[in-house]
Amino acid sequence: MSVDVTRTTHQGPVTLTLDAEGGDNAPDEIVAGALMAASAELHVLLVGRPEIVEPLLGSSDHPYIESVPSASVISFHDEPAGAVKSMTDSSIVVGARTVAEGRSQGFISAGNTGAMTAAGLLIVKRLSGIRRPAIVTILPGLEGPVLLLDSGANADCRPEHLLEFGVLGSAYARTVLGMASPRVGLLNIGEEDSKGSELARSAHGMLAASGLNFIGNVEGRDLLRNLADVVVTDGFTGNVALKLLEGCASSFFTRVRAAAKSSTRAKIGGMLLKPALRGLRSALDPEEVGGACLLGLRGLVVISHGSSSRRAISNALLFGADAVRKGIVPGVVAELERAGVASGEREG
Amino acid sequence: MSVDVTRTTHQGPVTLTLDAEGGDNAPDEIVAGALMAASAELHVLLVGRPEIVEPLLGSSDHPYIESVPSASVISFHDEPAGAVKSMTDSSIVVGARTVAEGRSQGFISAGNTGAMTAAGLLIVKRLSGIRRPAIVTILPGLEGPVLLLDSGANADCRPEHLLEFGVLGSAYARTVLGMASPRVGLLNIGEEDSKGSELARSAHGMLAASGLNFIGNVEGRDLLRNLADVVVTDGFTGNVALKLLEGCASSFFTRVRAAAKSSTRAKIGGMLLKPALRGLRSALDPEEVGGACLLGLRGLVVISHGSSSRRAISNALLFGADAVRKGIVPGVVAELERAGVASGEREG
Repeated sequence: MSVDVTRTTHQGPVTLTLDAEGGDNAPDEIVAGALMAASAELHVLLVGRPEIVEPLLGSSDHPYIESVPSASVISFHDEPAGAVKSMTDSSIVVGARTVAEGRSQGFISAGNTGAMTAAGLLIVKRLSGIRRPAIVTILPGLEGPVLLLDSGANADCRPEHLLEFGVLGSAYARTVLGMASPRVGLLNIGEEDSKGSELARSAHGMLAASGLNFIGNVEGRDLLRNLADVVVTDGFTGNVALKLLEGCASSFFTRVRAAAKSSTRAKIGGMLLKPALRGLRSALDPEEVGGACLLGLRGLVVISHGSSSRRAISNALLFGADAVRKGIVPGVVAELERAGVASGEREG
Repeated sequence: MSVDVTRTTHQGPVTLTLDAEGGDNAPDEIVAGALMAASAELHVLLVGRPEIVEPLLGSSDHPYIESVPSASVISFHDEPAGAVKSMTDSSIVVGARTVAEGRSQGFISAGNTGAMTAAGLLIVKRLSGIRRPAIVTILPGLEGPVLLLDSGANADCRPEHLLEFGVLGSAYARTVLGMASPRVGLLNIGEEDSKGSELARSAHGMLAASGLNFIGNVEGRDLLRNLADVVVTDGFTGNVALKLLEGCASSFFTRVRAAAKSSTRAKIGGMLLKPALRGLRSALDPEEVGGACLLGLRGLVVISHGSSSRRAISNALLFGADAVRKGIVPGVVAELERAGVASGEREG
């Protein structure tokens, strides 16, 4: 393993790999996003079929973008693990390999989420002590960010996985968001310790016994109220919750627009209020961050929305570079020790 | 069993039982709600300790309210099934018994949800063919109501339970909401049939093979978009989703209020828009319906929010009476046959 996970922060320029062929708007918007974000401080390895990618880069020289050739594309319909094993010349596999080989510190794709997860597990590989890497998303809490994980990498979970998610989320909150002692909550259907599914009740016991700053159950209605900084749940519930928030925000804007058309008075009110609501819209806009970390691996993996625009991709690159500079991967290793949940053996 | 579940609609006045001692605002608000809703068409059996309830009814005569004495109260902290078995003189047990004995057609309480579920199972009893009664909530879809179930009665579910939820929801949509062919969706984390947890994938197969109008998976972001009229999921995910919607709506109003204070222009805009937004607030207000059915039992059971005001309780009574008049219980029996998922033997 050539990735040094013991360094706590990253000095000098960060190199990130970007899948030029992943997502609904690939390759045009992806390459445009790379052109927006690449700089002396952020080098981009752009993976894709040369005949597709090169024309988009144009004839001018891009000192901070390097093309890495791949030969095929894993689609949204391909079975993830099988595709990663068989399509070794695909952009996702080639991209993940650049991280495993230490050529870059992280890999970003708006392609098949399942294939990104499989490539993370099989190629970038897990950190020692982590059985299930998880997707971390940043929710717009009323008083600041709330981390939700797992947001969809693991549809079926055991209690010990939820404990690991607590470790991963705490590491993220501490290193990337600079929180001194992140409060960890368990997404559950009641406030009392004894409430919930079998999974939630077992996880509650394991979280309470760990060295994490566990504050107990958090109900759905309190998710955006910053009772906890990190909220853990299985990847099924987490993914439903995340997409429900997206849907709720979008339906709310639709309703506000309808309300603002219901009378002349409301029309004028809506026009006057519009600029202020723009700030609200951007607080709830998933493109502002541009991607979610798949955490628990020996390198950074960022999964972007399939519908990502150039702005989302550029933001994902900037976000990924920030996480690398702040030392997210060594942060997880440190958190495993702090929480007392590290497995004995260590790699690397 | 004295409840005749074969009659398809209910003629004449409806009698409903109300737990005067359940909820954060009991007994004052509960009794006030009964006084608001009781009428020649809606008789109320008011269950509670006479020394608590009688003074609130005052000295005047209430021809449509009858007091039914109980002697104890199951609190929010009591273990549900144990409390229902041991506290036989509690308002929840006495109230459920009035339904089992045919003295009333339904029972409403804002008390301990788990105890209401246990009383439903143990006293009102399940309909033949239903293993797991479920809580049905009505979500404010953009184009009309969307039924979500189970919203919290069953934290751990098997696939066949989700199939039953499809039957219960279809019956509700057909009889109470008057939908001719309710579309049933499975809450899941992807559109493809093969996506999701083990539970979701098995349930998908069973729903597809049933006589229900199953349209496939519905993702969290589409829950409010009326792709399906009935959305089924396990009670853990359903309860998280329901409370998340509540929290999301409340955080959205907080944010709109903040946006409307951010400048003089926005302030005026907010003032002008306010009356139009009031309609939006009421569309998202859980007190408008006042309660959620626990469906699949031999009588109607309605669970109201713990924080219910008199308005919520009055609305719950009106809503319950409407469901009884439209024949919700026989509607479930008919739906079991229509969907081809009835167990062989029949009771009553």
